Amino acid sequence: MIKLLSIEKIQTALYKLHNNKIFEYAVIAVIIFSSLLIGVRTYDIDPDYLTILQILDALVTIFFLVEISVRFMTTENKKRFFHSGWNVFDTLIVTVSLIPIDQSEYALLARLIRIFRVLRLVSAIPELRKLISALVKALPSMGYVLMLMFILFYMYAAVGSFIFEPINKELWGDIAISMLTLFRVVTFEDWTDVMYETMKVHPWSWVYYLSFIFFNAFVFLNMMIGIVIEKMQAENYEEPSIHEQDIQLRLDRIEKKIDNL
Amino acid sequence: MIKLLSIEKIQTALYKLHNNKIFEYAVIAVIIFSSLLIGVRTYDIDPDYLTILQILDALVTIFFLVEISVRFMTTENKKRFFHSGWNVFDTLIVTVSLIPIDQSEYALLARLIRIFRVLRLVSAIPELRKLISALVKALPSMGYVLMLMFILFYMYAAVGSFIFEPINKELWGDIAISMLTLFRVVTFEDWTDVMYETMKVHPWSWVYYLSFIFFNAFVFLNMMIGIVIEKMQAENYEEPSIHEQDIQLRLDRIEKKIDNL
Amino acid sequence: MIKLLSIEKIQTALYKLHNNKIFEYAVIAVIIFSSLLIGVRTYDIDPDYLTILQILDALVTIFFLVEISVRFMTTENKKRFFHSGWNVFDTLIVTVSLIPIDQSEYALLARLIRIFRVLRLVSAIPELRKLISALVKALPSMGYVLMLMFILFYMYAAVGSFIFEPINKELWGDIAISMLTLFRVVTFEDWTDVMYETMKVHPWSWVYYLSFIFFNAFVFLNMMIGIVIEKMQAENYEEPSIHEQDIQLRLDRIEKKIDNL
Amino acid sequence: MIKLLSIEKIQTALYKLHNNKIFEYAVIAVIIFSSLLIGVRTYDIDPDYLTILQILDALVTIFFLVEISVRFMTTENKKRFFHSGWNVFDTLIVTVSLIPIDQSEYALLARLIRIFRVLRLVSAIPELRKLISALVKALPSMGYVLMLMFILFYMYAAVGSFIFEPINKELWGDIAISMLTLFRVVTFEDWTDVMYETMKVHPWSWVYYLSFIFFNAFVFLNMMIGIVIEKMQAENYEEPSIHEQDIQLRLDRIEKKIDNL
Repeated sequence: MIKLLSIEKIQTALYKLHNNKIFEYAVIAVIIFSSLLIGVRTYDIDPDYLTILQILDALVTIFFLVEISVRFMTTENKKRFFHSGWNVFDTLIVTVSLIPIDQSEYALLARLIRIFRVLRLVSAIPELRKLISALVKALPSMGYVLMLMFILFYMYAAVGSFIFEPINKELWGDIAISMLTLFRVVTFEDWTDVMYETMKVHPWSWVYYLSFIFFNAFVFLNMMIGIVIEKMQAENYEEPSIHEQDIQLRLDRIEKKIDNL
Repeated sequence: MIKLLSIEKIQTALYKLHNNKIFEYAVIAVIIFSSLLIGVRTYDIDPDYLTILQILDALVTIFFLVEISVRFMTTENKKRFFHSGWNVFDTLIVTVSLIPIDQSEYALLARLIRIFRVLRLVSAIPELRKLISALVKALPSMGYVLMLMFILFYMYAAVGSFIFEPINKELWGDIAISMLTLFRVVTFEDWTDVMYETMKVHPWSWVYYLSFIFFNAFVFLNMMIGIVIEKMQAENYEEPSIHEQDIQLRLDRIEKKIDNL
Repeated sequence: MIKLLSIEKIQTALYKLHNNKIFEYAVIAVIIFSSLLIGVRTYDIDPDYLTILQILDALVTIFFLVEISVRFMTTENKKRFFHSGWNVFDTLIVTVSLIPIDQSEYALLARLIRIFRVLRLVSAIPELRKLISALVKALPSMGYVLMLMFILFYMYAAVGSFIFEPINKELWGDIAISMLTLFRVVTFEDWTDVMYETMKVHPWSWVYYLSFIFFNAFVFLNMMIGIVIEKMQAENYEEPSIHEQDIQLRLDRIEKKIDNL
Repeated sequence: MIKLLSIEKIQTALYKLHNNKIFEYAVIAVIIFSSLLIGVRTYDIDPDYLTILQILDALVTIFFLVEISVRFMTTENKKRFFHSGWNVFDTLIVTVSLIPIDQSEYALLARLIRIFRVLRLVSAIPELRKLISALVKALPSMGYVLMLMFILFYMYAAVGSFIFEPINKELWGDIAISMLTLFRVVTFEDWTDVMYETMKVHPWSWVYYLSFIFFNAFVFLNMMIGIVIEKMQAENYEEPSIHEQDIQLRLDRIEKKIDNL
């Protein structure tokens, strides 16, 4: 029976399938269904139902395998398929979930890996894909500010660890713990408790906390503003506003009239 | 007596009434009064006064009924009346409050329904109506970012529920409870208590919390900036700035002069 | 002696004094000194020093009286003096502090009134005066958003008071207390404690809190963006950018050349 | 041997070294290494390793001394070397760490001074240097707003100290403590605890807290917006947008054509 179908015909059929809107929605539906399966597993489930879950899980895995195969086969230039980060990402998730993991021992690991399937929703919906690309593009402009913040955290954590360690080892034991404590201070989470404790021994230690909060707020504020301005300038390079377009049109008209004089 | 008045005359009178500024203010005053009645009921009231409240409530209901009838009757095209979302909204509130609810059993429900009357203030004041329309328009541009945030919450909640459930069932019992806990972490509400608890068992779990906070802050920040830029571009399409208008005027003058050469 | 000095001469001398930079700085210095006096009184002071404080206070009051008199006398059009809100404000503060208050009984009130002297710093420094004017101008654009937020608070407070009152009278006793509780929820201050308490009785009450937080954040975000855009448009009406000025200059040149053809 | 090398040759060699990319990266590497040394000291270290740390510390100090000497010697105009704030900063840090501090007594001070070495990372990486310059430039535009906020804090702290002192001396003891308490209120850190305590004695004291929070939020919001607009106008003065450039180009072309008529 299969012999009768030429490979070309299969490919055309697959291509039609791949570009079918219904197929696209089906993929999204299966991803959502697979995400719900993951969520259901966090509840206490009757062992009887667990078997059903495992079967459904297997079915989802098979569907994903088929879907990625269809996508691969309908790509004309097979090499270019892996040039797209999203394709690599999808293939990786599908491949990893194919690895047979002994349920008794590495059950948790198997579950954790399966969670990444939820991320396939991002690669399946073009709008979310665009959003992620935009976010990734914005990263470098934040890089140096984050570095500056890290230096600030590191220095204050070193000072805190040297001076406050005898007061509370759990908060100021070493530089790593101190940085975590400082992050807590920056989020304003019970930061006065931390401060009042050290103020009993070093009454002037409020300077340490307030200066840290101010520096961070100040650096953060400026970073935010910097990004807004950078983004707005980038937008500015894309297209003239309709009013600028209008001015350009009038200039063109004037130029032509002068040429015709 | 009524016979003497032609229907047309009534309609004209109603129309005059409807467009009267004093009538408009009276409607707003009654809505505010009705809102105060709702507020008063949250206090412990003497049973004697309760009867007065019920009478006042009934009077407000009647006033609302009359007002909406006047508005309906003064609308020339009766069909168009329900094309406006605000009219449908007002009619619904008035209709629902007409349903006789047995005070003894469903007293709470009756009270809750009456609270929606406060919302009539929004439909009665044009500026608030405009504000709401603007907010509703801004919703879609947030849609995909909220979806992205939901995926982030869902994945982290699944991970948290799998790993941290044995530590604290009340915080990480299932994926729904975990999402609520993660929302708490994002609002920085006693989030260190949640973290310190899991860090005793999994010392590296701070990575989980800090990465979640960073991802969320990062996505949120970018969403905000995205909306600002989108809104500013929308404004840009409305009207040229006075300086652009000035340039356009000068161009018009130059063009005319060239034509006259 | 005074006879020898003509009134005109005094006025000229006062005018010179008023416009003297040193006098201006002296006024600011005295205001700061008077503010410090207020601060000192919050500490436990030796009764001996208290007398000194009272004398210094009296001196400051006299200085302020003299200063405002000088300012009043150097104003040509006496009527216009009180047209400036800042002058009215200064006069009021000085006048009130002249009222002899029985120290034993209304000591606290006398102290509180004197605190307003600190505000004279705002009226004395032109930059701060400008800042306040800008802030006051921004108020109306926030008015309707604040009204919308109030309606949101009122409705949620009414619902909360009706449903949660039996659970915790101290948090949901009446609509006023409930609004305070809701403000606490919006500042994320131990809001989960409030929520967990009601969730024990009404497991779905998290919907109440989360929706409230979302609505408020959403309305607030849009208000902020609205103000930014409004302010930027206002700036846009003030002066053309140098690039727009450059374009205008070129257009003027072209126009002249055409005229000369 | 040294005699054979002329001073000029040394200088040229040093100059080459200074401008060498590898040398630059080596400096950054040593700064990071020195920062790690500081971090390591916050942990409990075996006394045997402590000696190694001290030797490494000495080596870093020598390297820094050499590096700053090289930089100084390769500067043509020796006077201009100290015109750069960054050079002064680096020299200061190196000089201070040369002071021999008795380890037993001032060990903590010696450690604290060494922490400033981490800041050399800022002076070594040009991007961070630019960022800091930008931050410093933004400071004055915040100055008056911070002054306004300080006045607000001072007045409210005076009022709080006068009225609430009998209730809780630890929170409202004097104006300084009250200002710290108010800062805590502004960060929303357990602010309701502070409020509920005073509300038991003065039921209307919520007005005090809420008005303070509103004033601060309002002033802060406007400051932020003010800075954004100021920065954007500054950007506006730097370079025309490509669309403005396009308009300018067209105008030039038109002008030339008119000249040629």
